[in-house]
Amino acid sequence: MQKIKDTVGNIKVLDQAAIKKAQSKLDNLTKPLGSLGRLEELAKQISGMHGSLDFSLTNKVIFTLAGDHGIAEEGVSAFPQEVTAQMVYNFLNCGAGINVLARHVGARVVVGDLGVKGELEDKDKRLKIKKVAPGTKNMCKEPAMTKDQAVQAIEAGIELFEEELSNGIDIVGTGEMGIANTTPSSAIVAAITKAKVVDITGRGTGINDQSFVLKIKKIEEALALHQPDSIDAIDVLSKVGGFEIGGLSGIMLAAAAHKTPVVIDGFISGAAALIAYTLEPKVKDYMIAAHCSVEKGHRIALDYMGLKPILDLDLRLGEGTGAALAMSIIEAGVKIMNEMATFDSAGVSNQE
Amino acid sequence: MQKIKDTVGNIKVLDQAAIKKAQSKLDNLTKPLGSLGRLEELAKQISGMHGSLDFSLTNKVIFTLAGDHGIAEEGVSAFPQEVTAQMVYNFLNCGAGINVLARHVGARVVVGDLGVKGELEDKDKRLKIKKVAPGTKNMCKEPAMTKDQAVQAIEAGIELFEEELSNGIDIVGTGEMGIANTTPSSAIVAAITKAKVVDITGRGTGINDQSFVLKIKKIEEALALHQPDSIDAIDVLSKVGGFEIGGLSGIMLAAAAHKTPVVIDGFISGAAALIAYTLEPKVKDYMIAAHCSVEKGHRIALDYMGLKPILDLDLRLGEGTGAALAMSIIEAGVKIMNEMATFDSAGVSNQE
Repeated sequence: MQKIKDTVGNIKVLDQAAIKKAQSKLDNLTKPLGSLGRLEELAKQISGMHGSLDFSLTNKVIFTLAGDHGIAEEGVSAFPQEVTAQMVYNFLNCGAGINVLARHVGARVVVGDLGVKGELEDKDKRLKIKKVAPGTKNMCKEPAMTKDQAVQAIEAGIELFEEELSNGIDIVGTGEMGIANTTPSSAIVAAITKAKVVDITGRGTGINDQSFVLKIKKIEEALALHQPDSIDAIDVLSKVGGFEIGGLSGIMLAAAAHKTPVVIDGFISGAAALIAYTLEPKVKDYMIAAHCSVEKGHRIALDYMGLKPILDLDLRLGEGTGAALAMSIIEAGVKIMNEMATFDSAGVSNQE
Repeated sequence: MQKIKDTVGNIKVLDQAAIKKAQSKLDNLTKPLGSLGRLEELAKQISGMHGSLDFSLTNKVIFTLAGDHGIAEEGVSAFPQEVTAQMVYNFLNCGAGINVLARHVGARVVVGDLGVKGELEDKDKRLKIKKVAPGTKNMCKEPAMTKDQAVQAIEAGIELFEEELSNGIDIVGTGEMGIANTTPSSAIVAAITKAKVVDITGRGTGINDQSFVLKIKKIEEALALHQPDSIDAIDVLSKVGGFEIGGLSGIMLAAAAHKTPVVIDGFISGAAALIAYTLEPKVKDYMIAAHCSVEKGHRIALDYMGLKPILDLDLRLGEGTGAALAMSIIEAGVKIMNEMATFDSAGVSNQE
């Protein structure tokens, strides 16, 4: 728990002087005041994180963390559990959606095993192994993990971020893979926001009506059985969470502690963001919501934290795909601030 | 008029067999069915344009066309008229918003003078000069241009596109610059969609309440004076339009005739799209709406044509800035279709 405490202790509020300086710089560029809308807001927010205007977003990293879920045995997913491990290999072989989109925006993908079932082969040592356990327990029968494991998962995320720092990180995106992981995510969102399970739960990878009804029932059962404490993030994560979800919460806390913008991907990342936010609300200032997922609980999670998504493209893949796309928009905002001509330098008359 | 007729005659409906083939390819990639939402829709739409799946979006071009407006003398803009020419120089010197964003997404910017007031200096011959006249007339007093000039403006856009073809064009974006040009754009949208002027008109570059009320009044006056025929695009363009707006309509028609996706930027581009759409509704299948502008008439124009914007980032700059950002999202969709692994190739189990 010490690593979490130390990390949380290093999260500072945004530097308002830097935000003001960014505003002033943006207002002198050859465009009507505020006419680049959210691009300008993003540039200001990141200036506030850095405490200066002297930065770029060259080094982009997507952390795609994988884990398995005991609840999968209840039939809440459209895909078999072995797909988690198969997709990890797909990530390492650069064939997945996140690989294509990360390459498109110039980001590198760091793949972490936080709790995949079975041992994964990795001859080239590209997989970051931080396995807490080979899958969580079935939360309908017992807590998904122990409290120690919940702490370990979050601290593994912090370690992953800090180990990657030497390769350069200017902005990070969160992503995940874990068959059935919309189920624990729905449970986390319900536990923390207190919204109804039926209002949060979606169809994940595409389950039919029968599985959908079962999924809601199983989430309600798990919450009734464990009664997680909405203001105790470790309690929530241990009872109804997942290892990759805890890992992502750790990435978010570490990013904030290192004054680095963290782009929150979809629904599962949103649940991880709620865990991080419950541990330390200041982390939110370093978060940027990439998009609004088709999973309806995502909007509820974002609203709870006051985050407004950048994109709305009917995505529901996860892996960090939405975060990759949003990173390019965020970088565009920073380039606008850094690269546009001013009214003076371009000899353009300003507003009358 | 012959060039317009020939161009319109070359616009074909989308190839449904290619769309079906694209769907089938997308459905075999390692992701749940349809889980990349609009990225998949975009890849399919462009496959339908090409009639095959064998294409990339490497060559990206933004056409930023400039023109002046006689209506500016009525005080409907926050900026003085000389800014149009000043901004053209800014485009040529790569200091404007569109230059930064086009560079970010790997697009080149082609700047055209369709009707800027005064002669522009251009030692390096980078400006495409297609000047119809040095600014339109004040539409509150007389038609903005003659019908011959309206035809000339559209045909100039077609020529610009076709002259650029030899440099390679896989996708185009539309952009513009013209002080006061939200005023003719509002008039065009009102004339064609028959929505109320007050429901369409926005504050452009940022006018105060007094100028805003005046702007609405002037648009209503111009429409009452000229009674443009909603189904006659040349009539509408000549009475209440602009040269750069007509040029953009020409770009759109030419793009469609050459089976090339055309990304519609903001409100002014939306008005130009209505002109093109009124000339030939099939052009719409080749259009992709980049974003939803802060200018409220933009949504009305897009709804009229059944176009759904990709981005919603509170942009209101024009120049093609939204189109540049959207191009990157569209290219991402095509790369997903072209570069992702299939279930078979990656050894991933499919949905049960």
